[in-house]
Amino acid sequence: MDRKARWMLPDGVDELLPPEAAQAEALRRRLLDLFDSWGYELIMPPFIEYLEALLTGTGRDLDVQTFKVTDQLSGRTLGVRPDITPQAARVDAHQLRRKGITRLCYIGSTLQARAEGPAGSRNAVQLGAELYGHAGVESDLEVISLMLATLRAAGVERLHLDVGHVGIFEALLEDLGLGPAAEEALLDALQRKAGDEIAAVLAEAGVETAQAERLSALAGLHGGVEILDRAQTVLGWAGPAVAEALEQLRTVADSLARREPELPLHLDLGELRGYRYHTGLVFAAYTPGYGQELARGGRYDGIGQAFGRPRPATGYSADLKALLTLGHGVEGPAAGGVLAPWRDDPALHARVAELRRAGERVVWQLPGDEQDNHGCDRRLVERNGTWELDTE
Amino acid sequence: MDRKARWMLPDGVDELLPPEAAQAEALRRRLLDLFDSWGYELIMPPFIEYLEALLTGTGRDLDVQTFKVTDQLSGRTLGVRPDITPQAARVDAHQLRRKGITRLCYIGSTLQARAEGPAGSRNAVQLGAELYGHAGVESDLEVISLMLATLRAAGVERLHLDVGHVGIFEALLEDLGLGPAAEEALLDALQRKAGDEIAAVLAEAGVETAQAERLSALAGLHGGVEILDRAQTVLGWAGPAVAEALEQLRTVADSLARREPELPLHLDLGELRGYRYHTGLVFAAYTPGYGQELARGGRYDGIGQAFGRPRPATGYSADLKALLTLGHGVEGPAAGGVLAPWRDDPALHARVAELRRAGERVVWQLPGDEQDNHGCDRRLVERNGTWELDTE
Repeated sequence: MDRKARWMLPDGVDELLPPEAAQAEALRRRLLDLFDSWGYELIMPPFIEYLEALLTGTGRDLDVQTFKVTDQLSGRTLGVRPDITPQAARVDAHQLRRKGITRLCYIGSTLQARAEGPAGSRNAVQLGAELYGHAGVESDLEVISLMLATLRAAGVERLHLDVGHVGIFEALLEDLGLGPAAEEALLDALQRKAGDEIAAVLAEAGVETAQAERLSALAGLHGGVEILDRAQTVLGWAGPAVAEALEQLRTVADSLARREPELPLHLDLGELRGYRYHTGLVFAAYTPGYGQELARGGRYDGIGQAFGRPRPATGYSADLKALLTLGHGVEGPAAGGVLAPWRDDPALHARVAELRRAGERVVWQLPGDEQDNHGCDRRLVERNGTWELDTE
Repeated sequence: MDRKARWMLPDGVDELLPPEAAQAEALRRRLLDLFDSWGYELIMPPFIEYLEALLTGTGRDLDVQTFKVTDQLSGRTLGVRPDITPQAARVDAHQLRRKGITRLCYIGSTLQARAEGPAGSRNAVQLGAELYGHAGVESDLEVISLMLATLRAAGVERLHLDVGHVGIFEALLEDLGLGPAAEEALLDALQRKAGDEIAAVLAEAGVETAQAERLSALAGLHGGVEILDRAQTVLGWAGPAVAEALEQLRTVADSLARREPELPLHLDLGELRGYRYHTGLVFAAYTPGYGQELARGGRYDGIGQAFGRPRPATGYSADLKALLTLGHGVEGPAAGGVLAPWRDDPALHARVAELRRAGERVVWQLPGDEQDNHGCDRRLVERNGTWELDTE
C-alpha cells in the first residue's frame, strides 16, 4: 500500500473538517432544540451492543448491514449500529418502561457494512424522533409534521411528501398462502411497479383472478389525493383492514391539505419500502435535485411485540450530513476574534479570560508564531500598563 | 439466554437516558463553546477507519484496545476508534496540511475492547483539544490551562494537577543498551515506584552504578516545586535533554504558581504513563474522591514523524460522561411546557408553531392521552375562538 493510501478513509466513510464540522454542530443544536420544543426527550444509546438486541424486530435487511465483532469480555457477538431506531424501541420498552405516550429523539453516528443508495455514505449521522404508545393516525400526523419542521429548520425549503400504507398490501396478501419466494418476488416487482412481472408471479402462484387484479392495481395507485377514490372503487370491499388504511390515508391527506396547502403530496399504495418492518402509514420527504429521500419514517407497531412489550410506535429519521449538504442558512460560529500576544503576565491572562467569558474568541499568539493571525480581526495591545483591544 | 439478558448492555457499555442525556448535551455545548472561545476548530473524524491509520504512532497499548472488523468493500481491516487523538493527528498532517499552528478539538464516542481502570467504562464520550505546529513549552501551558478551564466549565471545582516529563527517563535510558524486556520491566517498576525492583532490574542488566542511581532516583522525585532543586542536584549533569526537561518543568511550575496560586501542583518525574507515545511534558488532572484522572495529556511530537510529516503536537483529552457524573451545575433544558389539545384546527397549529418559535416547549395531547400532562405547567385553551394559555 502506498503512503498516501494509508491516510485515505474507507469507501463510503467520510469525516467533517473545519468549517463544515462547526456547521454540523450548529445544525445539530438547532434540530435538538426543535425536538425539545416538541416535547421529545433526548436519548444517547451506545454505538455498539449485543447483536440480538440491535436486530430485534428489524428483519434481515439490517442484519447484512451490520458490522459484527466478538466481545472479548462475554464471548458474545456485538453489532455496530446501522440504525438507531431499534435502540430507541429497546429504550422505550425495557429501560423507561413507561405506561403512557413517550416521545424520544436521538442523534448519533451509525455505520453500515454496505453503502445504500447512490450517495454511497456508510457513516450517516442519524437523527430521528419516535413516538411510542399511541396507535391513532394523529401520532403519525405529528411525526410527519415534525419531519417537515426538521427539514425546514435545516434550511431545505422545497419539499415533496410521499405517503403510503403497507397495511393494504399486507391485508391483500393475507390468505393468499404465497410461499416466501413468491412473496419476495411480488414485493420486488411491486416496488418497481412492473405490472407484467406482478401478473406473472401471481399467475404462477395460482392466485385467483379477482385477488390478483387487486394486487396488480396497487402498482398503479399513486398520485394526488384523487387516487383514494379510485382505490376505494378497486379495493374498497377487500376487508376492514384495507378500508381502515384508506381512511387513515384520507385523514392524513385532508389534514395536510388544510395545514400545508403548498406542500406537494404524493400518495403511493405500491410504496412498500421497509415492508417487513413497518405496519401502517409510511412516509418520506424529498427535495428536487436530490435523488434519495431526505427523511423517511412510518408506523412500526410490530417492534413492540418483538421486544416482548407490545407498544404502538411511529417515527422518522434523517441524515444530518445530507441535510448539511442540501440546507441553506446554517452557519458555524461567527468569524473573527482577538489575537493575544503570549506573555506570562497575570493581568493579560485575566483580560483574556474576561473576553472569553464575554463570548469572544481569543487566540494566543505563541512565541515564534508571528505570521498567522488565525482569522482574528482585533488584537490585545499593552498601553500604559493595561491591555486594550486594537482593530487589526 | 433469558429474555431479560437480551436487553442488557454489554459490560462496560452504557447509555444516557432522560434526563442525563439532555444534561450531557448541555455540557457538550458548553465545552465546545469553550473550545471555540480559545480558537480551537472542531473536527468530526469517523468512528471507524483503516486500522493502520488508527494505530499509527500509538504503540501496542492501543492495538489491544481496538475492536477490528473486515471491510466487505475493500477486504481490509478496519478499527473502531478507542481514541480520537490519532485521528486528529491524521487530520492535521494529511487533511488540513497547514504550515502554521493548528488548533483542533473534537468530541465523540470511542470504544475500547477492554475496560481500563476501576470505573470500567468501555464507551467513553471523548473530548479533547490538540495544538499542532509549536514545540515550545508555551503551547503545553496553553493546553494545561484549557484542560483546567474545561474541568471548571464542567463544574468540577476542586482540582489537582500532576505534571511529569517523559524526556528525562528517555534521556537516562539512552545509551544503556537495555533490551526490550528489561526496559519494559524497568518502566513497570518505576511506575509503581518499586525501588527494590528498579535496582534489581538495573543490576541484572549490568547498568553502571552512577547511571542506575539516577534512574532509581526518579522514583523518589515527586512532590512540590522543591523537587526540581533536588532533581537538579541528582540529574543536572545528565546531559542537555535532561537539563531542558527540568527547565520546562520549572517554567510550567512558575507560570502556574503565578496564574493559579490556589491550584495544588504535584510534580512527578517517575510518572511515565503513555511513555511510548509521549515525548515531553505529560500532565493529568484529578479531583478528590475520584480514583482516576479526570483529564490527561501531554506532548507527543513523535506522531508527526510517524505520520510522515514531522509536526510538534500537544493536547489533552477527557471523558464527557465522567465529567457529567462529577460536575455540578449542568442542567438540561428547562422544565415545564404547554400542553396543546389535539385538534385539526389550523389556528391552533399556527399558535403552537408560534409558541415553539418563541422558545416554548409545546406537547400535543393526542386523542386518548388524557392522564398525562407530560411535565407541562400550562395548557392551550380555546376561548371565544382564540387559543389562550392557561396555567395548569
